[in-house]
Amino acid sequence: MNTTTVEPPFLDLSSPSAQPSISATDDIPSSVEIIPLGGAAEIGKNMLAIRSGHDLIVIDAGVTFPDNDLPGVDLIIPDFTYLADNADDLRAIVLTHGHEDHIGALPFLLRRVQAPVYGTPLTIGLARERLDEHGLLGSADLRVVEAGGRIACGSMSVEPIRVTHSIPDTVSLAIHTPVGKIVHTGDFKVDHTPVDGRPFDAARFAELGDEGVILLISDTVNAEKKGWVPSESVVGTVFDQHFRDAPGRVLVTTFASNIHRIQQFLTAAERHGRKAVIAGRSMIRNIRVARELGHLRYPDELMVAVDEMDDLAPDEIAVLTTGSQGEPLAALSQMARDSHKIRIQPGDTVIMSSTPIPGNEDAIWRTVNRLIRLGARVVYDLISPVHVSGHANQEELKLVLSLTRPLYVVPFHGEPRMMQAYTDMVAGMGFDRDRVIWLDNGNRLILDGADAMLGEPIPVSGRVLVDGMSAGGVTDAVLRDRRHMAVGGTVIVTVALDGETGHILDGPEIVSRGFLHPNDAEGLFEEARDLVVEALNDSAGSDEIDSDDLRALTRDTVSRFLRKRTGRRPVVVPVVMEV
Amino acid sequence: MNTTTVEPPFLDLSSPSAQPSISATDDIPSSVEIIPLGGAAEIGKNMLAIRSGHDLIVIDAGVTFPDNDLPGVDLIIPDFTYLADNADDLRAIVLTHGHEDHIGALPFLLRRVQAPVYGTPLTIGLARERLDEHGLLGSADLRVVEAGGRIACGSMSVEPIRVTHSIPDTVSLAIHTPVGKIVHTGDFKVDHTPVDGRPFDAARFAELGDEGVILLISDTVNAEKKGWVPSESVVGTVFDQHFRDAPGRVLVTTFASNIHRIQQFLTAAERHGRKAVIAGRSMIRNIRVARELGHLRYPDELMVAVDEMDDLAPDEIAVLTTGSQGEPLAALSQMARDSHKIRIQPGDTVIMSSTPIPGNEDAIWRTVNRLIRLGARVVYDLISPVHVSGHANQEELKLVLSLTRPLYVVPFHGEPRMMQAYTDMVAGMGFDRDRVIWLDNGNRLILDGADAMLGEPIPVSGRVLVDGMSAGGVTDAVLRDRRHMAVGGTVIVTVALDGETGHILDGPEIVSRGFLHPNDAEGLFEEARDLVVEALNDSAGSDEIDSDDLRALTRDTVSRFLRKRTGRRPVVVPVVMEV
Repeated sequence: MNTTTVEPPFLDLSSPSAQPSISATDDIPSSVEIIPLGGAAEIGKNMLAIRSGHDLIVIDAGVTFPDNDLPGVDLIIPDFTYLADNADDLRAIVLTHGHEDHIGALPFLLRRVQAPVYGTPLTIGLARERLDEHGLLGSADLRVVEAGGRIACGSMSVEPIRVTHSIPDTVSLAIHTPVGKIVHTGDFKVDHTPVDGRPFDAARFAELGDEGVILLISDTVNAEKKGWVPSESVVGTVFDQHFRDAPGRVLVTTFASNIHRIQQFLTAAERHGRKAVIAGRSMIRNIRVARELGHLRYPDELMVAVDEMDDLAPDEIAVLTTGSQGEPLAALSQMARDSHKIRIQPGDTVIMSSTPIPGNEDAIWRTVNRLIRLGARVVYDLISPVHVSGHANQEELKLVLSLTRPLYVVPFHGEPRMMQAYTDMVAGMGFDRDRVIWLDNGNRLILDGADAMLGEPIPVSGRVLVDGMSAGGVTDAVLRDRRHMAVGGTVIVTVALDGETGHILDGPEIVSRGFLHPNDAEGLFEEARDLVVEALNDSAGSDEIDSDDLRALTRDTVSRFLRKRTGRRPVVVPVVMEV
Repeated sequence: MNTTTVEPPFLDLSSPSAQPSISATDDIPSSVEIIPLGGAAEIGKNMLAIRSGHDLIVIDAGVTFPDNDLPGVDLIIPDFTYLADNADDLRAIVLTHGHEDHIGALPFLLRRVQAPVYGTPLTIGLARERLDEHGLLGSADLRVVEAGGRIACGSMSVEPIRVTHSIPDTVSLAIHTPVGKIVHTGDFKVDHTPVDGRPFDAARFAELGDEGVILLISDTVNAEKKGWVPSESVVGTVFDQHFRDAPGRVLVTTFASNIHRIQQFLTAAERHGRKAVIAGRSMIRNIRVARELGHLRYPDELMVAVDEMDDLAPDEIAVLTTGSQGEPLAALSQMARDSHKIRIQPGDTVIMSSTPIPGNEDAIWRTVNRLIRLGARVVYDLISPVHVSGHANQEELKLVLSLTRPLYVVPFHGEPRMMQAYTDMVAGMGFDRDRVIWLDNGNRLILDGADAMLGEPIPVSGRVLVDGMSAGGVTDAVLRDRRHMAVGGTVIVTVALDGETGHILDGPEIVSRGFLHPNDAEGLFEEARDLVVEALNDSAGSDEIDSDDLRALTRDTVSRFLRKRTGRRPVVVPVVMEV
């Protein structure tokens, strides 16, 4: 039950660690602004700006993947207008980790502004790949920083803090500003037994709490979930069982960026005498980058090529493949459709070591069902703990709040429902609801060390859609037409008129796409043609009718007729040529 | 962990209750056939036929709602060809309960075949509404049967058994055949404290087990889930808390068919001094039908109209609304967009008393997020137990298997992943995997009382798509075009040629829908026009080129150009008029 009863606080969160300390000199800026800038329609994530006087820092530059409501859109990127308008003030772009929703918009951003890009080794390694694909590697200024280092940004400095997440080398950030310290958790979980032996740095959060934190910007993705997320190493134990017990081949799919999970796959394969086969381009690329940087360890002889599988017994094979989200072109999806060179066979065990990204459920279950029909045994989260989340559950979120004891908190990187859950949770700890601030894209939160207030918002479009090679061009009207055609198809009515007399020279010709099978439509279209001829003849010779009117007349005649006769509403496109 | 270890059986399921007893006389059919007939692409559900000699029974006639893969399709109905071809043998259509996926295809079926339709009072009441909407009430032969009754069907008889589910008056069926008894669970859960005081009839299942069951056809929807589903009455307790504690109005959304849930809403409203307002047509209709049949009890004065809400304080109001699946036109979705006459205001509590049907997650969370942004507090399954499932979890499924001790079992009404989970579960009980039979649409399972074998399958299309008013016409090619246009839009190229010389008289004119904003496309289209002119001029005068060739030339020229320049692949439709 999520009632609003306030529990007695176990730490006195009503007296925060930070004391009001406003600087009164003229040289030092006496306020700091926090401005979410990014990306998705509903939630402020992917990118955040922090301004102190004429010093501007950008944290992350991520993309959002569109839901079914945005057909044909490949990516959503943040609106960079504010950054381009303030390019002279931009001191640094700081990346928290290497996931697409935190680095994927970097190529688009660096085409608009110039600034040094900071990140930990793996994050910079993955950003480098992304920039290389866009031909931007030569012009980018990439700088590696380790957790515990400091990035000087004029009147501010940024300190990465080691945390744990579903990709190695993830950091939270402490931003040291003239009015106090801000802690931005980024994406994190509290893992005390991570696969790479580099646990969450709770001590540094505690120190910052002692020093005084004015603002905590917190991950909220799992704020609805009670307890603690299990350690990543739990999955290794489960892999061990399956790799040992599976009668035939084991195929594992996971996110290509989940290097910890990939390491556990490789370790389990080696331990149980299975050779590793890698399927899928992004998987191959990330393994190369992560191994070069020391984040993956395995002997060369562990890996075999797909063609070499035939020389091995099924129980000597473990395949790691892309396709955990049911992406139609990914290797596992092709295997499920029996159109990949790796053919699924009875005796195979497929492990879905991932969780559906919202919106992908249909595609993922379709893949799972197809694999089962082909004779595979499929193991997934619901029936075996083959996946753990990379985001903190409630107890971990509470821990970070307790360690930092901030004056204010911004629930971030979640949807409104997660912000609601986070707010209820901290209120239950005795944290004052009035000190929980919900921000939206373009909001300006102004902190002076004591008070928090909202300034005049920055105009942001909320989302910039990338479709094909370029951003822009996909407007709401375009999307509306796409949605409309997706459900009703399109019917095109073409007629050639004599430019002088308005008499029909040829047509009307009616063709359709995605409406009805031509055989079923033929009779209908014949009737519709007669109606158009009648309507156009009635209007011929009238001087008051221009070609816009003729198009509208044609469209309305056909739309009305088809709706009445079929109940369907295709997009009717009239083309009137005057010859 | 879902390992395949076989636990010691707690009942001796290796010696089933039914003994082989083949009838050898000529009069009595010596085998029975089970034929799933329906509906969805991936799974055998919605409709099942049972044949004994020349007696044919149909169980259920349901629809499936399409996923995102079938844009514009309203419904999927079973393929009725086999039933139409065997109409003379059809003795009865027996409905297990009143959900759309069990009765929704009845109007389409009764247009093809004539047979008496049997069901419990509420099921028949809801079927009557559905038939009335289709103008078929006059011709339909609807017959009410109570649990415990018998329906004579030639050499077979059907006995409804009272079970519990998310709609009242749900029954399992015992089919008494010449070769033995078949138990078809339909959808069920084991609720010992149902809202209407009519619990699951475990005793009858046990009796049937004693008498001997050759086949159990079992629900598998929740076969992946451990334990027992909580009783429906648990939700009433949670409603009580929210209706008591909410500071303002309470708004509840649930499935309009969940009469138990509606009763609990009404009871909680009355108990806590709130008047009830009903929003949404299907909700109003079902309340009327259910009350007439005695399945809903409330005093007339509990209900007020929407207009009367203004006279009441917020904490005197409880609203029951459609929209639990985020359907764009439902009342709650309109409220979330602030376009309904009931305006969401801070202080409102919205209870999502339902679970997402797969594929609807995006739309539901969008609604939830919008409601939160409007100031409502939204309560849902993840944060408060405001919903329970209507389908049996593993312990309930095991109970029914133990009570009936069948010779064979068919996991039914689920996807392959649920069939896999069910099979593992019963194997863990000591049930022989070889006696678990997976059926697909059109499969013919032949039982002779001792053996089970698969006959030559019946050809079924798997799915018949209903779009607009009619079934058919929406072919795979039509769907492919819709999907293609949904992501790329359409570009239409029209040109008028001189029929004699092949010279261009007018055009090419290029218009688009759902491609790019016209301003962004203008320059591109100008270049594309030049390319088309060039290509057509090159081919003019050649006798070997017909109008199909000209169309292909136009299409390919434009497609190639747009793909190269934009990375997009719209559906290019060429219209060549020869004047």
